[in-house]
Amino acid sequence: MTLIIALDPPMNIDDIVEWSLNIIRSTFEVSSGYKIGLPFILRAGADGVKEIARAVSGKLLIADLKLADIGYIMSLTARFMSTLGVNAIIAHGFVGFKGALEELKSTCDNVNMKLILVLAMSHPGASEIMEKVFDDMLKLAERVSPWGAVLPATNTKLITRARNALGKQIKILAPGVGVQGAKPGEALCAGADFEIVGRAITRVSNPKEAAFKMIEEQKQRLRLCQH
Amino acid sequence: MTLIIALDPPMNIDDIVEWSLNIIRSTFEVSSGYKIGLPFILRAGADGVKEIARAVSGKLLIADLKLADIGYIMSLTARFMSTLGVNAIIAHGFVGFKGALEELKSTCDNVNMKLILVLAMSHPGASEIMEKVFDDMLKLAERVSPWGAVLPATNTKLITRARNALGKQIKILAPGVGVQGAKPGEALCAGADFEIVGRAITRVSNPKEAAFKMIEEQKQRLRLCQH
Repeated sequence: MTLIIALDPPMNIDDIVEWSLNIIRSTFEVSSGYKIGLPFILRAGADGVKEIARAVSGKLLIADLKLADIGYIMSLTARFMSTLGVNAIIAHGFVGFKGALEELKSTCDNVNMKLILVLAMSHPGASEIMEKVFDDMLKLAERVSPWGAVLPATNTKLITRARNALGKQIKILAPGVGVQGAKPGEALCAGADFEIVGRAITRVSNPKEAAFKMIEEQKQRLRLCQH
Repeated sequence: MTLIIALDPPMNIDDIVEWSLNIIRSTFEVSSGYKIGLPFILRAGADGVKEIARAVSGKLLIADLKLADIGYIMSLTARFMSTLGVNAIIAHGFVGFKGALEELKSTCDNVNMKLILVLAMSHPGASEIMEKVFDDMLKLAERVSPWGAVLPATNTKLITRARNALGKQIKILAPGVGVQGAKPGEALCAGADFEIVGRAITRVSNPKEAAFKMIEEQKQRLRLCQH
């Protein structure tokens, strides 16, 4: 499947775990997994994350912590998240290999956790510094050989460049579909394996319907671009 | 004062809050504040962080989350940490201004939280990508105008470059003193305002004595370099 759902609950929700379990139940059939971020993890706490991990069991549960520290600290975090049942974790490529991602990759392998590297982002400020070193990021990704890489659905050129540079071994995950502007399937056509969708599914009256529709739209666009 | 203590408890400590409270009590007189990282915050949970914030009251309590996300997500995290009593937060300069640090700075100002930007790191992999854009990081820091900046005590040339570029308005915090190799006072001599010390104080039999000795050694070196 080609859809990962980002669980970004509104600020005014008291019980974000219950809110998430509802989304998970109604979209489970069509999603490859779910993504939770740092604000979510802080609010839900360890017990909340465990409960979500049980519900997601068998699919991806990605901790989108955007780790960007020395290897020792990132490894402590990865090990802790692994004990909660999280099976994939996002880190930044820009911290480099030696003393950073080399160690995290080894820790992830040890605890059977998928490592996913951010290689580019889509907000305007990403062009100020990050994009200047995009070629270095691609080389870094080849060196780390993570399970996956994050590239913005709103910048399909970067997705295609990454796919060409990294080959088929590394999964490409593309956030930014829906509210942030990319159309369903665009990133898949450019070479991504998964599109990450948040509010366009989680903030509508019928998440199940929205998720099924998203999958249909992905398929339609894929049929067009594959000809 | 010139000393910030990093609370990095050993893995085999069950009650990291109690461990931290002991360190805080015995070093309170000589420290400007304390730093807690992501693994610590995840392990301690919201209630643990609140307890530490009460003990640290009146001094800096820095959440070293090394935030590196879009502005909206970093702001959610900063707001949440603020509700726990944390009064300073660390983010990466790398993510840029527009749609990222511009928004986080504004949130920090709103909740009366000090923003501290990582401009350089000291692990070997930092030279692979981060150091190549160090000049951009300095420009970014001028634009964001954060309360403080993190530069490695083990690379005093970068501290001096940052001090010259940023003027006296931005505090410079230098980790890496003690176990990681920098001698007490070296970073201060190069232009830093605070040295961040972890294990050399927290993992010895008498943290109080170690902290007082660290301050004395800082003073001694400062006397030498200021002549």
